[in-house]
Amino acid sequence: METQTVIKEKEAITEFCGREGDVRFAGTHLLVELWTSKFLREPNRIRGIIIEAVKACGATMLGIDLHVFSPNGGVSGVAILQESHLSIHTWPEYEYAAIDIFVCGTINPSLAVPVLKERFQPDRIEVREIKRGILP
Amino acid sequence: METQTVIKEKEAITEFCGREGDVRFAGTHLLVELWTSKFLREPNRIRGIIIEAVKACGATMLGIDLHVFSPNGGVSGVAILQESHLSIHTWPEYEYAAIDIFVCGTINPSLAVPVLKERFQPDRIEVREIKRGILP
Repeated sequence: METQTVIKEKEAITEFCGREGDVRFAGTHLLVELWTSKFLREPNRIRGIIIEAVKACGATMLGIDLHVFSPNGGVSGVAILQESHLSIHTWPEYEYAAIDIFVCGTINPSLAVPVLKERFQPDRIEVREIKRGILP
Repeated sequence: METQTVIKEKEAITEFCGREGDVRFAGTHLLVELWTSKFLREPNRIRGIIIEAVKACGATMLGIDLHVFSPNGGVSGVAILQESHLSIHTWPEYEYAAIDIFVCGTINPSLAVPVLKERFQPDRIEVREIKRGILP
């Protein structure tokens, strides 16, 4: 029984954290800076792109909230995932969107980036990856 | 009339972006790494702390979603703000929470940090500030 408990704990650790070499961490966070003139005022398009991006990572969406702001028509969309969240905030007046893809476990958030490139057709995109919760 | 329109545009720019010296940016994003044994499995406490943190910044909450995960009892809470979002994801098994405070305009997200310190009483807290959407 004791051995079985230890195995279960190891499984839980594998499931809820990532690993690169000797480094273990709670999650991987991509900060995406996207410069485009496309769809930044279109909540339905943005909803579709969020759903597609979540699917591309193999993550599981639990809920999604979208808001449209006046006077510039900017959109905020946040999807809560089983593996954390994906958010988009747009500033159409600057042709800019800030996108965050934050996932735990073995999910690879980079798989969402080709979807963002294909759908938004950005003039410029910058992606920063930050490991969150690096374990001692 | 023309003058008035120009003034309105200037006001809109002031409202929806921040400025430090000559640098203008769409938003300020705090990534908070919080190590604590307190409240990481308690969605109602976490909801209360999110609400208090949003208030401390002077931001406006539009909605909040919370989810509790099995088997470890981790909580995900995401508040959509008029000024972007505040999210908390907890890993009770590591006594860790990843918190993001992303705001646009002249809101100062650092004002939320004392609330997080007071409520979660962390053993350790690290705060990174990232400017999002640095304008050309």
